[in-house]
Amino acid sequence: MLDNMGVVLVRPMYGGNVGSVCRAMANMGLKSLSLVAPRELDLGEARMMACHAWEIFEGRREYGTLSEAVSDCVLVMGTTARDGLYRQHARTPREWAPRALAAAELGRVALVFGPEDNGLTNEELALSTEIVQIPSSDGYLSLNLAQAVMICCYEVFVATGCYEPIEEKSAPATGRARDRMYELWREMLLEIGFMNEEKADHMMQGLRRVFARGVFTDDDARIMMGVAKQALWASGKRKKVVAAAGVE
Amino acid sequence: MLDNMGVVLVRPMYGGNVGSVCRAMANMGLKSLSLVAPRELDLGEARMMACHAWEIFEGRREYGTLSEAVSDCVLVMGTTARDGLYRQHARTPREWAPRALAAAELGRVALVFGPEDNGLTNEELALSTEIVQIPSSDGYLSLNLAQAVMICCYEVFVATGCYEPIEEKSAPATGRARDRMYELWREMLLEIGFMNEEKADHMMQGLRRVFARGVFTDDDARIMMGVAKQALWASGKRKKVVAAAGVE
Repeated sequence: MLDNMGVVLVRPMYGGNVGSVCRAMANMGLKSLSLVAPRELDLGEARMMACHAWEIFEGRREYGTLSEAVSDCVLVMGTTARDGLYRQHARTPREWAPRALAAAELGRVALVFGPEDNGLTNEELALSTEIVQIPSSDGYLSLNLAQAVMICCYEVFVATGCYEPIEEKSAPATGRARDRMYELWREMLLEIGFMNEEKADHMMQGLRRVFARGVFTDDDARIMMGVAKQALWASGKRKKVVAAAGVE
Repeated sequence: MLDNMGVVLVRPMYGGNVGSVCRAMANMGLKSLSLVAPRELDLGEARMMACHAWEIFEGRREYGTLSEAVSDCVLVMGTTARDGLYRQHARTPREWAPRALAAAELGRVALVFGPEDNGLTNEELALSTEIVQIPSSDGYLSLNLAQAVMICCYEVFVATGCYEPIEEKSAPATGRARDRMYELWREMLLEIGFMNEEKADHMMQGLRRVFARGVFTDDDARIMMGVAKQALWASGKRKKVVAAAGVE
């Protein structure tokens, strides 16, 4: 689906931004970049910011007008930071992302961004089938071009469901593993004199609360049992030394 | 809540990135920036990229170590692009955002980002209470520093629910308004010879489908009725002209 989705930059001014756009696209699995009537771009800056995504810049297509750039697209998503007459039906990238992906199964989809200084003109917005506005703070509404591209590409990438979150390799600890651990800790905390039998139940409630704040894995249980065993061993050893020395 | 949330950059290398971070923070309503042992930053680049968010840079705090920078924080969210032993319980910014906001009601929260070249060390990650990994494509996992900051700040800002989507000022058209419009269109399409009585019902079904693809507002209905009325007028006028000329 992402192969059918491209970024279109209209009259971009700064090479650094265009390079950053390439990197953002690569980070989010997009490859196709089109430039409409670009200014004279600083290619050194573009390459530096594109980093390992320079091939996206090298594979770019250039057009004279936005109309030509989107002529083969079934969905044209124009971005705007401003409100106004032609922007009343704007939606957020998160709202549009599933729709954009559905359309990308049927044909090409364009994410269109205006120049750094003024954004898309009303005439260019009129070429959009959808209008997108990125949520931002009233204190500073206007995003950097590459940042705006990143958020739109990020929302589309997340919507694909391709990203597999990191899996905790250790399974959550079973009730039995947790019980064994708490028994060992009880024995150990009594042995080292952290608590006495009378207070033990109360103290163990507190300990259970500490260990139950989040997922508690088998590995976690093993580490905490190791601590208890070691403390028991160290305490027994100290007792023997003290006994041997005939003190206490 | 966002006043209690700050961005911490550990050993940042490039002024341009630090400036972009300031702008991203301002776009998403964050104000507090801390730098840990920054390199010699190009302040000209920083100012250019910060744009209207330079006061965030000017208000920054600097620390010698990450430990000092987060000493007053109740939640420390360390970011990483890599997998590995200390990163198994990483979650996405979208998963962490509500938790970060809840914590920010109780105390200070830090979003921590490592240097451009290598990210946070294991020792620095160990200072985190939460580990965050931004979803990205296997093709290019590592995000630009300012882009990573943007996505985290964006997720937090969206999670506040502060952003009010643009409201369509015109209400959805009522059934009555739509019916009036379709009657006018039927009359007009017959009048201009687009269809005949026999095919009219079928054609009108197609027209209804076109107009029912999305929300159809009162303003939309008014525009389309205007079109029908004008076509009726123009057609009647042409007939009169043709009749007067005695042609056809």
